[in-house]
Amino acid sequence: MSFFPSALDELVERFASLPGIGLKSAQRLAFHILDLPEEEARAFASAIVTAREKVHTCRICQNLTDSDECSICRSEAREEGLICVVASPKDVAAIERAGEYRGRYHVLHGVISPLNRIGPDDIRIKELVDRVAGGNVREVIMAMNPDTEGETTAKYISRLVKPFGVRVTRLAYGIPVGASLEFADDATLMRAMEGRQEI
Amino acid sequence: MSFFPSALDELVERFASLPGIGLKSAQRLAFHILDLPEEEARAFASAIVTAREKVHTCRICQNLTDSDECSICRSEAREEGLICVVASPKDVAAIERAGEYRGRYHVLHGVISPLNRIGPDDIRIKELVDRVAGGNVREVIMAMNPDTEGETTAKYISRLVKPFGVRVTRLAYGIPVGASLEFADDATLMRAMEGRQEI
Repeated sequence: MSFFPSALDELVERFASLPGIGLKSAQRLAFHILDLPEEEARAFASAIVTAREKVHTCRICQNLTDSDECSICRSEAREEGLICVVASPKDVAAIERAGEYRGRYHVLHGVISPLNRIGPDDIRIKELVDRVAGGNVREVIMAMNPDTEGETTAKYISRLVKPFGVRVTRLAYGIPVGASLEFADDATLMRAMEGRQEI
Repeated sequence: MSFFPSALDELVERFASLPGIGLKSAQRLAFHILDLPEEEARAFASAIVTAREKVHTCRICQNLTDSDECSICRSEAREEGLICVVASPKDVAAIERAGEYRGRYHVLHGVISPLNRIGPDDIRIKELVDRVAGGNVREVIMAMNPDTEGETTAKYISRLVKPFGVRVTRLAYGIPVGASLEFADDATLMRAMEGRQEI
């Protein structure tokens, strides 16, 4: 049983339904909303509705966008023949922040994960194969996380797109820049050794 | 610079403006909203607006309510002559959960805190004095947190309401039920000793 007005309870429950927000945090957030100027609270509410309504996936690369095709797919400055495949829109943001990559993307919205019952048909693999089958693609770069699920997904996609004669690569494994050898784990060290380069 | 559609950025910023929510959490929450069914997202938004519009303070005790007077002030089962003074609506909820108290409340919405520039006129002390001055009150129980600000506030209020001939008490200090003596701090132990009771 609660001792708050029902409208406040409802808001607390909504916040508590968000990932990583417990009941205490949800209460704190709801009280914060009550303290906001009324127009701020309205702006918050409309930001939720607007984001949910306007943001959808790009027809081509499946990244999030508010237009039919995302700005990267529309940009003539980005090389059409180079596709970097990532699991999530956050990964696109991370690579774009690094600022070097001049190709396009393909966002899978997940990785193959038998444990979580996510199969190849549950993520945007078909859309990638269609792009490759359409021609014009010369290289597909796999940029999934370097864990079992990421590797499985990369291998699965690799088998599907290689028959079209495209080059398939993946991000290099190695010691992170600025990190200390001493603290690198064995698998990373081994991968870094295998991938050693001439200087 | 961001690499998300602007409607998503706006939502991330709104979440990040909430207390205790950093940029990474705000991103995770915003992505969660995008994944919600559209009617769920709308319900969330309207919960924000409804709570902000409907919830206000009780005319009498200043606790949060969605009617003119809160359910406790309206209840004939609650003793009108006994007022428990707390800093926040959360404290009312905590005491109600304990389930023993049969009096009414007064919510100050803060405590006197010179460091944070909160003076007696910034919290609902005048409303409390008015209630006591109106007669019918026989006892005022101070239930602020046992810290310097709470004590200062309790003493300040005590000086104002005692002239009306009411009894002024405060919650007992002591060892929390279930806690171990070994881990009690010195101040609590001293208070518990001072307040020792016949068994």
